[in-house]
Amino acid sequence: MAITGDQRLLKRINRMALVRLVRSQPGLSRAELSASTGLTKSTVSLLVQELIDDGWLREDSVLVTGAIGRRPTPLRLDGRRLVLIGAELGVGYVRVVSMSLDGEILYRDDADISVGAEPEVVLKQLADMMAEHINKLVDGGREILGIGVGVSGAVQEGTGVLVVAPNLGWRNVPVKAILDASLQLRTQREFPLFVQNDGDVAALGEVEFANGAVGDPLLFVGLGVGVGSGVVVGGRLLLGTRGFAGEVGHIQLQRNGPKCTCGRMGCAEAYFGLQAMADIRRCSISELRQKAAAEDPQTLEVLAQAGRHLGVLLHNLWTTLDPALIVLGGPSCRLGKAFLQPARDMFEELAQEARLEIPPVNEARFGELSVAVGAAALALHELLLPI
Amino acid sequence: MAITGDQRLLKRINRMALVRLVRSQPGLSRAELSASTGLTKSTVSLLVQELIDDGWLREDSVLVTGAIGRRPTPLRLDGRRLVLIGAELGVGYVRVVSMSLDGEILYRDDADISVGAEPEVVLKQLADMMAEHINKLVDGGREILGIGVGVSGAVQEGTGVLVVAPNLGWRNVPVKAILDASLQLRTQREFPLFVQNDGDVAALGEVEFANGAVGDPLLFVGLGVGVGSGVVVGGRLLLGTRGFAGEVGHIQLQRNGPKCTCGRMGCAEAYFGLQAMADIRRCSISELRQKAAAEDPQTLEVLAQAGRHLGVLLHNLWTTLDPALIVLGGPSCRLGKAFLQPARDMFEELAQEARLEIPPVNEARFGELSVAVGAAALALHELLLPI
Repeated sequence: MAITGDQRLLKRINRMALVRLVRSQPGLSRAELSASTGLTKSTVSLLVQELIDDGWLREDSVLVTGAIGRRPTPLRLDGRRLVLIGAELGVGYVRVVSMSLDGEILYRDDADISVGAEPEVVLKQLADMMAEHINKLVDGGREILGIGVGVSGAVQEGTGVLVVAPNLGWRNVPVKAILDASLQLRTQREFPLFVQNDGDVAALGEVEFANGAVGDPLLFVGLGVGVGSGVVVGGRLLLGTRGFAGEVGHIQLQRNGPKCTCGRMGCAEAYFGLQAMADIRRCSISELRQKAAAEDPQTLEVLAQAGRHLGVLLHNLWTTLDPALIVLGGPSCRLGKAFLQPARDMFEELAQEARLEIPPVNEARFGELSVAVGAAALALHELLLPI
Repeated sequence: MAITGDQRLLKRINRMALVRLVRSQPGLSRAELSASTGLTKSTVSLLVQELIDDGWLREDSVLVTGAIGRRPTPLRLDGRRLVLIGAELGVGYVRVVSMSLDGEILYRDDADISVGAEPEVVLKQLADMMAEHINKLVDGGREILGIGVGVSGAVQEGTGVLVVAPNLGWRNVPVKAILDASLQLRTQREFPLFVQNDGDVAALGEVEFANGAVGDPLLFVGLGVGVGSGVVVGGRLLLGTRGFAGEVGHIQLQRNGPKCTCGRMGCAEAYFGLQAMADIRRCSISELRQKAAAEDPQTLEVLAQAGRHLGVLLHNLWTTLDPALIVLGGPSCRLGKAFLQPARDMFEELAQEARLEIPPVNEARFGELSVAVGAAALALHELLLPI
């Protein structure tokens, strides 16, 4: 009997649902999958076998107990064959990571780029790094499932065009098209490749590589020279109509506040962007880090003041989005408690004034690799979307 | 042959997809529906006939042209039989509207309630008004599809419990359970009944009763004694983890700003909530309206200042959510240009400083009925959700 479009779609939905279930509850058996999906045991067995053959799932060893009867076989994500590549196009650097399906980092590379470099030069370098990863992975018997790229700017959904990246000074760069072509030239192959904003992919990284269930909505706030965010709600990214959602570094925290690089005044980024904090302390970013590590009193006061402004931003975003979990990431997190504790305190204080409880505020699971890992998560996310 | 669960689900998805398509493009023919859904013509014919029999769709008269051959029959929503009831539980009043499927208001009623009245007393009055509507509608040969209720507070999804409504002074009131029981007592029948936050339902009203497609994400900002919002993104409400999303009246606009009723300082509501504006002008809300109508210079200055703060809030929400369309509603809109124009100007000014273009900012389609009509839209929305 011919398979109809509806049946193909249902099969795809069911396959991806099984992968997601096994991922959030590692160790589920075929019988448990049948019970929680409503699919018959024979359908589950068929689909699970396909997923094992395709490299998505593996059977775990059965725990030997004293109990009588055959034990059900626990299923897990298979981290051995399928891999994801994630890249970060940062301000002053590019970074590539290769990751297994179950969130293990296999290889990583960084390279500095000169600020103000031409898009094509930077993307050529990124393609070289990616091609090197691809060759190593394929030589090792791995199969590349997909590639993701996180960029510090607004990206048009679908086309992968970087519309505007103020901190890179780029406008209307077809990042996906250029990388597709460069990789095809280098490897004679095509890969599913996805491009998205850095805050957005970092949010996905927290969700897709969580060991188990994770709060929804999840709000990721990226703290660096730029301040941005990503929101995952109902398992999907909140992108806005032009891909500009989450540009929270330009929320106005104070009328007639300090001038921001964007032209507006009193933006969050003008209070606690990494460059803004260095400017307030009248030093470079690396000096700021050193002074903070040396607990220079003036620097600690600058960071505390900046942190309190971050606390107000967190409060405002919480009020707007009601996230179940907030995750802080990006290079400014390395400034540590001197910056982050006053932020937590201010957030807590504002909530207490209204007798409300704040959600958990965690630091990013993958630290400074949040965006690169998140980019790999983007590829996984897109491939796991049923429709 | 027995129909499986999958087939039932697909049928439901397809039926609702056809209703949504005809709604967004009135006049579509069966052949056009087949082309845009990928369903066979016979499946479309079968489903359309069911939808006509059930009162969802009707055939429009065929336009007679000089062309040869049979003209395809245009389909439209059928406004004649199925009706929705929407109710608003406001601060100081309750309101009920009955609406046809295609967005026509059939009946409306308002009643004042004393502020501080017991929840059960208020809900009894609301149930009486609803029952009256139901009787009139049924006597007129109408069929009630569902009932929605919009309340000025945070509602727990699924249970319909009003968790907290600061401006009503209510906490943990099972609004849905009480109304379900009261209506059953009065009519000996059960109805699908849904309860949600007022800003959320008003946002749905703009989407569900739009004549054609509407911007997504859509941001509705409700301006009254309280300031709240609703966001529809990807056709769904953004509710947050506890149903508190969109409480944007408590975004902090200024450190150490005026005290808000919530206990915090510098909240948006403390700058341009309706009561706050009256307090700033040292008069009552109705006096504020009169003074504004009489163009009292001091009042105009208060409204202009408040409006500029609203402009900052709109800017901050735009930056966070990147909506395709912003809609302003609620009683403060009746203060007119003296309040709204400075808001638009400030929003525009902030965007221009960053050389960005703002989205359209409209006034609510149903004016002061936005929440009641939105509540009816909530019922329609829930009934049209495929899964």
